[in-house]
Order: sequence, then C-alpha cells, then structure tokens
Amino acid sequence: MKLKVSRKEFIKAIQIAQRAISPRSTIQILEGILLKAKNNEIVLISSDTEITIKTSIAAIVMEEGEIVVNSRLFGDIIRKFQGDTIDINLDGTSMNLKCEKSNFHIQCQLPDEYPMLPIVEKNNTFNISSQELSDSIKKTSFAVSMDETRMVFTGVLMDLSPAKINFVALDGFRMALKTVNNPNENTTSAIIPARTLNELIKVLENEDVNVCISRNMALFRTKTTEVYTTLLSGEFFKYQGLITESHTTICTISRVNLQSALERASLLAKEDRANLVKFEIEEGFIKISSNSEIGNVEEIVESKVEGGNLKIAFNSKYLLDGIKIMESEEVRLYFTDSVNPCIIREDDEDYLYLVLPVRLAK
Amino acid sequence: MKLKVSRKEFIKAIQIAQRAISPRSTIQILEGILLKAKNNEIVLISSDTEITIKTSIAAIVMEEGEIVVNSRLFGDIIRKFQGDTIDINLDGTSMNLKCEKSNFHIQCQLPDEYPMLPIVEKNNTFNISSQELSDSIKKTSFAVSMDETRMVFTGVLMDLSPAKINFVALDGFRMALKTVNNPNENTTSAIIPARTLNELIKVLENEDVNVCISRNMALFRTKTTEVYTTLLSGEFFKYQGLITESHTTICTISRVNLQSALERASLLAKEDRANLVKFEIEEGFIKISSNSEIGNVEEIVESKVEGGNLKIAFNSKYLLDGIKIMESEEVRLYFTDSVNPCIIREDDEDYLYLVLPVRLAK
Repeated sequence: MKLKVSRKEFIKAIQIAQRAISPRSTIQILEGILLKAKNNEIVLISSDTEITIKTSIAAIVMEEGEIVVNSRLFGDIIRKFQGDTIDINLDGTSMNLKCEKSNFHIQCQLPDEYPMLPIVEKNNTFNISSQELSDSIKKTSFAVSMDETRMVFTGVLMDLSPAKINFVALDGFRMALKTVNNPNENTTSAIIPARTLNELIKVLENEDVNVCISRNMALFRTKTTEVYTTLLSGEFFKYQGLITESHTTICTISRVNLQSALERASLLAKEDRANLVKFEIEEGFIKISSNSEIGNVEEIVESKVEGGNLKIAFNSKYLLDGIKIMESEEVRLYFTDSVNPCIIREDDEDYLYLVLPVRLAK
Repeated sequence: MKLKVSRKEFIKAIQIAQRAISPRSTIQILEGILLKAKNNEIVLISSDTEITIKTSIAAIVMEEGEIVVNSRLFGDIIRKFQGDTIDINLDGTSMNLKCEKSNFHIQCQLPDEYPMLPIVEKNNTFNISSQELSDSIKKTSFAVSMDETRMVFTGVLMDLSPAKINFVALDGFRMALKTVNNPNENTTSAIIPARTLNELIKVLENEDVNVCISRNMALFRTKTTEVYTTLLSGEFFKYQGLITESHTTICTISRVNLQSALERASLLAKEDRANLVKFEIEEGFIKISSNSEIGNVEEIVESKVEGGNLKIAFNSKYLLDGIKIMESEEVRLYFTDSVNPCIIREDDEDYLYLVLPVRLAK
C-alpha cells in the first residue's frame, strides 16, 4: 500500500468509520479499521458486529493494499497532523505516515481475520431523504425501552405499507409514532436497534438514502457510505390499537408554557414517587400540581379547552420527553378519560406522541 | 421574611453562593444557603467549611427574616420560573414562592445551626484587579500537586514582598510562577487551596478585589461578594532557588508548532513510560522523538537556536500543560544541560514555567 490522501477528507471518513467502533470491544481486531487501497480510492470498514460501516474517499493510490489500523491511534494521528496531504507507505505490517515534518511508523494488523461485510438481499428497498430519515429517528428513538430483557422494544419499528412508512418506538409507558411517505408499494417491517439509528443520523449528509431490508439485516446506503445493521427479532406490539379517535377533552396549549410548568412541577415530583404530576383540566386552563415531603407546587397554564373537565395524573418524565422533541408553538392534548392514554400532537400532522396516565388510588 | 426580588439578579447571586456548596457534604445544613433579608437586601451565605461565600443583592424587604433553603432545589425553582419578579413569603419554616402563575411551598431549615462567618483580621490587605488576579490563578493553579499526602503543594503560594506578589505552584516535576505588582509595602505569604482559587475566578466580575490575609484565613472582597478560604499550613518549597540564569542553549520557537509536535509525539509516548519525549536541539531546529511498542515518531520543529547542541528528555504532559496556557506567538526555551530544568517564557515577561527533565540511562 502506497498512497497520498487529503488530510481533511480522510479525517471525515475516519470519523464516519469510528461510529461503528465499540470502545469496549472484546474482539481485538474490531478495535481497528480495515483500510483497502485500490483504484484511486481508500475504502474504510469498521464493525462492532451489530453495526458495520463501509465508507470511501478518493486518494492517489500508487500501490494497492489492505491493512488494519488501530482506530483511536490512527484517527488521532491524522487529526493532529498539520499539513494538507498525507503520504502513507506500508511495509509488511509497519506503516509509515508522513505529513510536513512529521514522520510516524506504526505497527498494524494483517487484514485476514477481519470479518466479511454482511450480505443483504436487495429485495425490499426504498429511498428516503436524509432529512426525513433523521427527523423520523430523532422523533421516535428516544422513546424506546431501556429494558434489555425485552430486546424487541429497545429498537424502532420501521413498518412499511403501501403509501406510508411508520417509525414506531414504545416502552410500555409511552409511544412515539412518525409517518413518512412510502414511494413504493412494498409491505414489510423491521425492528432496528435504536443505537444503530442514533449513529446513522450522525453519518448522514444532505442526500438521499437507499434502505434495503432483508430478514436479519438492514442496509442504509448513500453515495459514499453504507451502514449495515442487525435487526431485532420478535413480535412488536400491535401499536395501531392504541390510537383511539374518540376524545372527550381536547386542550390546545402553548408548548413552551406547558413544558416550563411541567419542568417546575417535576422539581418536586421525585423519581421514587414515579415523577407524579396531577392535571385538573377546567374551562380555560390546566392546573398542574405535584407534592412530596419537601413541599408542593401548583401551576396554572392557560389553555383552550374543548369538552368536559377532567382529572388525570402522569409521570412527568414521559410527558416532557415528548413535548421537548416537538417544535411547534402550540400542541394539542387529546384525552378520553383518566385511565386511557393521552395523545399529544403538534403542527407536524405526521407525528403522534402518546402517554399512559398513572392511575390514582380513589 | 416577606420580600420581592428580581429573578434575574437572584439567579446570579444564587449561582455565586452555589460555588461554595459541596455536592457531597456530610453536614446536612451545609447543603443549604442561608438567606438573610434585611434593609432592602438579601444576603446569601454558603460554605463547605473550606470555602465560605457571602453575597448580596437588592430586594424589596417587607418583613425581615433568616432561613436556610436547600441550595439545589431552591436554585432550580428560581431558575425555572418564567416571570421577572418573585414574591417570597416565609411562615415558620414553610416558604411560599410565587412567580406569575407558579405557586410553590417548600420546607426550609431554621438558621440556628448554620456556621458563623469566619473572622479575618484586616492587617495584611492589598488591592488587585480581578483581571490580574484571574490571570495569575489561571496561569499557576493547574500546576499544583494532586498528591493529598503533601497538602501544602495542592495550593498556590501567594508570596508578597515590597513591589511584587508572586503566585507560585509546583508539584516536584514543574513549576508555574506569575508575578504582579504589589501596590503596598507589606511582606507576607499564604498558601491558598487551588480549589478555592478556581471557584474564586468564577465569581469575579470586572472590578477590584480587596485581599486580606490573616494567619489561617484569607478573604477576597468585591463590592457585593466576599469569598473566605482556609489556608494550607506548612513550609513551601524555596522556589527562588530553582530559577537559574546561566543558560547554554536558548530556543525561540513557534508556540503552535511546538505544541502541535508535542501533542503528536505524545500519541505514542504512553503514561506507563512517563510520556517520554526526547529533544535533540541542533542548529535551526529541534528534533522531537518518541517511541513505544506500537511505533515511533520523529518531528522536526524549526527554531532559532542560540548556544550549543543538546539532547534532553521530558515528560511531554508537563511541557504541554505549560505551553497550552501561554498565549504569545513565540515561546523561548532556556536550557542549561540535560539534567537541569528547562525554563519556558512567553511575551508576558512576568510569567515563567519550569520543567524538570527526565534523566535517561546512558
């Protein structure tokens, strides 16, 4: 391997590859990035077995070759160089890196043991803009379960039906659902680990993403980068049944005021008491209250209220998680009664957040 | 206690007081801030026994009173309020806080058990601008020892002699020394815990600071705030003896290039080998090299060199700590031989940083 590469471009490619490197890998070779130099291109491959990334950049390749470099050290060296161009020259497993008046020799590993790229059949594919994909991930992935004994709920369901794709995350207390258009007619579904999606967001630039879903794997492809992920297997919750349309009370309320009042009420609503906040909905306002042994708080938040009065209680954390992710000036809260879920909507009609109430002892 | 106060001003005062609250206090009352309302002023007092802060703000006081509020909770509530003005009304130990449509009741503690303010005799005092004081602290406090078995070196020495004040920190491997003018004729010294000084910087605004030094305590006073600190007792190192003026080699070098080369060399200079970097000083350049089992690096840094060639080795961490705190374009390195300290100076002639070399086996 002998090549010349732009430092700036290389830094960017390494940062993308590093997203799949686990800091606590038990497989030594996976602390490395596999570099393949060929056809005036460097291909970088990294993996933590769950997520695998392949990305490439242009380079002047004088001599082809493959080698595994330690991800952290190699990234640090390239980042800390001061020049524009880096010369790399491999001799056996010893790599020489030159940039201006810096001259490094580092020991590398042979590529033989590095795992192969996963194989994903290209049957079920669709295109989505990176903007729409990022937005769908951000608005759902925070709501997945942290409970690793029920792995299936630590992922986001991507549910394709003709005309639409639902992104769904839920954890037994709340659900986030974002819908985007499906340009195709295909019907399929996949549960993708939330961690993969959160890394995926960070490698996306403003471009189209091609998504392939096979039985055990999914692949997200852009012009320069491929992100492979294992899927979570198991039965997802029949989430459609949660969304009822028969509401008895609807509140239209300033998002900032609601968030601010909930945050204050949460100061006294302690975790050991399930962050309990009580809502009393009356004409023109919601009274939010909370109390604990250190004190009590009462907040009046003005609201347009349609329908009857209602008393209902929530874990404030779950309400806040959803309201914080919303962006519109006003949000709408749809209630049925004190035991059925509250549905929260914003100006983005394709987004829905649902929270189960806490039942109070009579 | 019954009063009305500006929320913005109160937030600022609470943030200052919180600098003396230890998150892991074993004395329950010291998790609180003592509030004293009197003469249209609120005085806030906080302490972790080592550092004590007293600060005050204007308020409309309708009824005088004293009470201890939980620092974290009280601060969070005031910060999260949405209005401009806060109404506080104390009834026994129950405090009512109102701000727009928020209404809190919180339980407080009686002020009886709160420790008294320390007494500092006003014999040895001097004035210093906050700018000069902050600068002196920032340029020295990073060099104190972390070794709590030799407490005296975990502090910064403030050494007053007629005409000048030396701020000195050292840890047996390096020393930082910053000199400022002494407007007075007094001769005294005090060793101040680095932690206190680092908190002090954060409460200083652009104003004059009056410093009082007594036997066991020091007091830093501004118009609105007093910071008391205990002193470290013990004999400080005779630091003046370290500074020699007989140099055989002087290098004048770009600070950025030197820092950058050292940072790269440090990537291979591992902690278990004392971050060892070797310098070879020859006409026109310094060659910096380092090696470990993963590889080796050689850096050429152009330099104006006066005097003879020299080979010397350092722990790169100690060199970098000092060079990073400097601001001028060029720095000067003064060497005597391979076993005596290297002195580093920048444009600020009143600052000196000194590093002991690592002796290499022949």
